[in-house]
Amino acid sequence: MQLSKRAREIQASPIRKLMPHAVAAKKRGTKVYHLNIGQPDIPTPQAMIDVYHSFSDKVLAYGPSQGLDVYREGLVKYYQKYDIPLKEDQIIVTIAGSEAVTFAMYVTCEVDDEIIVPEPFYTNYNGFATMAGINIKPVLTVAEDGFQLPKDEVIEAAIGPKTRAIMICNPGNPTGTVYSKEDITRLCKIAKKHNLFVISDEVYREFTYDGAKHTSILQIEGMEDLAIMVDSVSKRYSACGARIGCIVSRNAELMAATLKFAQARLCPPTVDQLAANACVDLGDEFFGPLISEYKKRRDLVFAELQKIPGIVCVKPQGAFYIVAKLPIENAEDFVIWLLDNFQIDNETVMAAPAEGFYSTPGQGRNELRLAYILNEEDLTKAMHIFRQGFEEYKKTHK
Amino acid sequence: MQLSKRAREIQASPIRKLMPHAVAAKKRGTKVYHLNIGQPDIPTPQAMIDVYHSFSDKVLAYGPSQGLDVYREGLVKYYQKYDIPLKEDQIIVTIAGSEAVTFAMYVTCEVDDEIIVPEPFYTNYNGFATMAGINIKPVLTVAEDGFQLPKDEVIEAAIGPKTRAIMICNPGNPTGTVYSKEDITRLCKIAKKHNLFVISDEVYREFTYDGAKHTSILQIEGMEDLAIMVDSVSKRYSACGARIGCIVSRNAELMAATLKFAQARLCPPTVDQLAANACVDLGDEFFGPLISEYKKRRDLVFAELQKIPGIVCVKPQGAFYIVAKLPIENAEDFVIWLLDNFQIDNETVMAAPAEGFYSTPGQGRNELRLAYILNEEDLTKAMHIFRQGFEEYKKTHK
Repeated sequence: MQLSKRAREIQASPIRKLMPHAVAAKKRGTKVYHLNIGQPDIPTPQAMIDVYHSFSDKVLAYGPSQGLDVYREGLVKYYQKYDIPLKEDQIIVTIAGSEAVTFAMYVTCEVDDEIIVPEPFYTNYNGFATMAGINIKPVLTVAEDGFQLPKDEVIEAAIGPKTRAIMICNPGNPTGTVYSKEDITRLCKIAKKHNLFVISDEVYREFTYDGAKHTSILQIEGMEDLAIMVDSVSKRYSACGARIGCIVSRNAELMAATLKFAQARLCPPTVDQLAANACVDLGDEFFGPLISEYKKRRDLVFAELQKIPGIVCVKPQGAFYIVAKLPIENAEDFVIWLLDNFQIDNETVMAAPAEGFYSTPGQGRNELRLAYILNEEDLTKAMHIFRQGFEEYKKTHK
Repeated sequence: MQLSKRAREIQASPIRKLMPHAVAAKKRGTKVYHLNIGQPDIPTPQAMIDVYHSFSDKVLAYGPSQGLDVYREGLVKYYQKYDIPLKEDQIIVTIAGSEAVTFAMYVTCEVDDEIIVPEPFYTNYNGFATMAGINIKPVLTVAEDGFQLPKDEVIEAAIGPKTRAIMICNPGNPTGTVYSKEDITRLCKIAKKHNLFVISDEVYREFTYDGAKHTSILQIEGMEDLAIMVDSVSKRYSACGARIGCIVSRNAELMAATLKFAQARLCPPTVDQLAANACVDLGDEFFGPLISEYKKRRDLVFAELQKIPGIVCVKPQGAFYIVAKLPIENAEDFVIWLLDNFQIDNETVMAAPAEGFYSTPGQGRNELRLAYILNEEDLTKAMHIFRQGFEEYKKTHK
């Protein structure tokens, strides 16, 4: 029996597909610095771990499909700190940001409908689109201007009869780009003109540098019916394994429909929600040092990249990623070459080829994404290996 | 902006939609015995709770998309106890049984394809089918013979050009029916003849009574390429809030494709997997008393139901549900009437109308599902109220 077309065609994770080369390197005894994945090394807040330690229910029971009341109340407080006033029933807790994105797709798009997404974009949007049977229509953004949103006419040219939404990730994965309030407002104007939903993935909300200010889609006036925000605790609390996110909208009809999708899968994990709830009050005492640490890392990575002649890379102001365009033909070949052939003191480094973050064939072939999720010492070594490796690679490759 | 067609059409949970009547009853100070939901009251094993208490990682990190190695190894041991020999790579850990069912649908069906399911069936299959954009083709089973699988010719008559799989739940929710090895073998013969996958939801594996023996789809010879099993720890360990399940198949190509869907959503929750892993060795010392307890409850509920003149109900041999056909026109009206109008000593009872478990319009309108998930004392009171209520209702209703 043949598998479904979507099973045959769903994109293999471009981040994970080179893992066999890393595994082989490790088997040879080579240490691999992973700059290819978005798994932070920052300790999870103790308040969160404490919740696991003190869980005392006799029965680990289902929670409500929309999430535990206590956590939704906590989330209202959390968003209030960012000047996003919400009511509990405007929030549905999801199984990480992943499920929030799929719910947003299901609720806005019928099979074969389209969502416009600036590329490069978070590669798993492709997988969710395949599951939902919808199409992602990319609009190109470029390394030269730091992957800013395209001009109105470029976005509007992408809108067709099947377009139902525009989806952004802000601050951006993989680009690290923080969209200005002007750009978000401009995007919303286009959405309103064409009656499109805007789905805004804001899981890196706290990760902004150099005074860049994050603008939530929920802060734009007049977008009550069209704005959908997706969020997750994974990055901000270094709690990727908790699988707790949420979908937020002030469109009551949309939330009622989303709840029906949520009811089908019963509920998000119970203890993990309680754990996430222990973090909603964390403020500057937690995020201050965290952001300083990431800023330091970004500066380190960016400074090292700048030493590579011919590199194209504008300093990103958010998230913990940098996409750099390299003066070579194929960045994936370079990543594989580093893993297979290059080491310093028996150590090497792994980056993520950016091609997988584009949906236009051939785009991004000479670009890499680096995640700065290692401590300063390791990151320094990793970037040294990266630069030396690049010089060596250039001697024999175009 | 209009929501998607699937958002407008997805079935509201028939179990949850009568909740406002229960809430109103409680507001009036009436105690409601909930026989309408499948949330067991049995304590979660202490071994599982202990894992939450001793979680000591500094970073609550992503696990592998296919699930933690240690847990997949644990699951291999678990299935071995049931004479289901497996290898780790034939198992992908999922976010509860819900996700396992959706993965099974995605990997077998393209949009608009069909899955045949004996009705009445677990109502959330409808929601998953809506998400996946596929259709469920029901084949009717009836209270009169205890909801046994239909004859070959009935099943074969339902197979069309778009049919890709047959899905069963064994032991059954909502019916409690345990299919015999002969019937499972017969079903597999049909599947092989027509080259269809068989998706078997076996989350109630342990819950069999009167010596009934559960037959896994993975125990049928010659089904290596077609058999897909979905499973969950929710019911067997009374751990519905953990959201840990799995999808299992010996079809390597199918598992490779399923892994790509799994990679899109990154991973199941980490601590909950570790907690589930603490249960894989539980044997008769745990399940023996558990099954005795549920058997006692089933006998109690069944005996009480038998006292209702005109009821149609064969004693079910599995799960913790009974579907009964009542000598009235509309079981939902009766459930609402109980909540709104009837109490004994200020207590009432709630059941689930079975109509929502059928996809053929009008079927099951005079049927109810009772979940025997309360302790003996409460269950006795609840069934007394149920029977008295029914007598009272019959005086004024058809």
